[in-house]
Amino acid sequence: MGTEQILDGLARGDTAALARAISLVENQRDGYERVLSHVHGRLGRRGARRIGLTGPPGAGKSTLAERLVQLFRSRGLTVAVIAIDPTSPFTGGALLGDRIRMESVSLDRGVFIRSMATRGSQGGLATTTEEVADVLDAFGFDRILIETVGVGQTELDIARTAESTVLVLVPESGDGIQTLKAGVMEIADVYVVNKADRPGADKLRQEVEVMLGIRRGNAFRNITPHHRPTPSDRRTVGQSDDKPSQSDRPTVRPSDWEPPVLAAVAVKGEGIAEVADALDRHRASLEATGRLEARRRERLAARTRAVVNRTLRHWIWGDTPAEALLGQALDGMAAGRRNPYEVAAEILDYVKSGATR
Amino acid sequence: MGTEQILDGLARGDTAALARAISLVENQRDGYERVLSHVHGRLGRRGARRIGLTGPPGAGKSTLAERLVQLFRSRGLTVAVIAIDPTSPFTGGALLGDRIRMESVSLDRGVFIRSMATRGSQGGLATTTEEVADVLDAFGFDRILIETVGVGQTELDIARTAESTVLVLVPESGDGIQTLKAGVMEIADVYVVNKADRPGADKLRQEVEVMLGIRRGNAFRNITPHHRPTPSDRRTVGQSDDKPSQSDRPTVRPSDWEPPVLAAVAVKGEGIAEVADALDRHRASLEATGRLEARRRERLAARTRAVVNRTLRHWIWGDTPAEALLGQALDGMAAGRRNPYEVAAEILDYVKSGATR
Repeated sequence: MGTEQILDGLARGDTAALARAISLVENQRDGYERVLSHVHGRLGRRGARRIGLTGPPGAGKSTLAERLVQLFRSRGLTVAVIAIDPTSPFTGGALLGDRIRMESVSLDRGVFIRSMATRGSQGGLATTTEEVADVLDAFGFDRILIETVGVGQTELDIARTAESTVLVLVPESGDGIQTLKAGVMEIADVYVVNKADRPGADKLRQEVEVMLGIRRGNAFRNITPHHRPTPSDRRTVGQSDDKPSQSDRPTVRPSDWEPPVLAAVAVKGEGIAEVADALDRHRASLEATGRLEARRRERLAARTRAVVNRTLRHWIWGDTPAEALLGQALDGMAAGRRNPYEVAAEILDYVKSGATR
Repeated sequence: MGTEQILDGLARGDTAALARAISLVENQRDGYERVLSHVHGRLGRRGARRIGLTGPPGAGKSTLAERLVQLFRSRGLTVAVIAIDPTSPFTGGALLGDRIRMESVSLDRGVFIRSMATRGSQGGLATTTEEVADVLDAFGFDRILIETVGVGQTELDIARTAESTVLVLVPESGDGIQTLKAGVMEIADVYVVNKADRPGADKLRQEVEVMLGIRRGNAFRNITPHHRPTPSDRRTVGQSDDKPSQSDRPTVRPSDWEPPVLAAVAVKGEGIAEVADALDRHRASLEATGRLEARRRERLAARTRAVVNRTLRHWIWGDTPAEALLGQALDGMAAGRRNPYEVAAEILDYVKSGATR
């Protein structure tokens, strides 16, 4: 299926074309930027909302995602799920192949589930995920769930490409305070303590609330005069490529969003409606404060930077003899006669002088 | 302290100069590549070994690191520790400031402890960590421990810049199988089940061994004819920038390294010597198979690519009007008249045409 056929198929709402388009984008094969450029003009036509779902392994994210999908479907919404599969650099594939799941929804034509491997796309995975979400958005899905496993920087960058991020925790994640140590706590818009029927759930909720400074009944809360910045105030998308200039940022009102810490037992379907409600309220807050538009502009700028940087990397290491220069220099480096900084400077000189060729 | 003074100080073994040099490199301030270029000629003079230590929050990595430091010191070795601090994108600083630790060793002049924040260096953190390790290596430390918290892709990329990687797990990390799901299991050279005096430790060890296919007493093991690839066979450093060509890879013998799964109770000092012994054996294996040299070449190539890419990013988004072009295009993108791919192409055209100016 060529690029033209894919574009035609997308316009017709053909699911096979959708799958092809996503593969093209995921693997950055010929024509992928053409597809993305086309797709970009069709974003947001059905008001798709992107929801990030992250948390440590074993927190029950997949179950929560499945329950959310069911809830959205019961409200007549179509749903796409992007599951970022942790991929072993050794096996080159998903370790447990556990994506044979979401059985209750996998035969529903209003649901599209796609796994993405992390293999090979390091450094650009957040951008690629966002681009796949674009394809799904333009195709017309109402909700796009982006699920990542893990609590590292890359996983957070991915979750943050969504407009709302849900962090799922469980009592047995370990000591609450140790979870906080991972430094991932303050990034979410909605917190869910899953498996809330297990011992330690209330304690974990309290710890999270204390950490967020929103402990109910905190006597200091109402007398604290200054604005408490929320994650939404500060966070950026695609940080490595994102240096927002003043022009990127329209004036926005300070957010009054206070991330809720909810309890759920996803496996029993308990607490799911509350999560969906919190997501609706967060969306409304983003719109009311102008933050939705501000973040859309930030994302456009970040995306443009990321595309420039990616294209340059491909350009340098693909078509030009930079790789050959590196190969020639390697023996000298291994023998200690040269170092990577000298060789890099030489390659850069070549690239710059040859840029107009 | 200028670059020259820093270089002089490093040559004299001045710890203050060392701290300055690391700050310079960590923040990529003026002169940092000069320092790195200088440092690069002095790598490996004392045979420094780099050891990565990673695992989920709460696994006891800091305690294990402290015990390893004590052990190395008792053998007369000097030790540097790079602790990658998970940093909240919201607070912009380490969440708990828990690096006031390692009290038993922090006053020892043969020990140097440095925390690095993850803030701001996304996408390049593995490279920056490796460069800081270079400074410590050239300064003359015998052992360099690189400790990361978290089980995400970025953290793994960092741990893998070391020649040997230790993955620390604990029984209460959650269901063993869930930990495996994170896809981080097969990257380590040495596995440590810490807090091994707690319930579930034996079960976790067995699960890890099964997963690695090295379950002791496995009847199939000795009759399996084919070589089982180890993580060391496949892994690369700085993957996003690393596209090894054939010339990067001298011939190496297949590794016969079978990652051990050790038990430890770091807080009591139990099992620490076994970890150190396993690291020595792994080092010997790397040398015997030619893998140490092969990986050194891979790292040199990956570093050169990373430096080229980083310099280009700085060049494009720093000195040239690319940022201004982006700023001008932003309103059009926000209004849907243009898209990031068109704008990126425009910026790239500008960069290419202007490269020789």
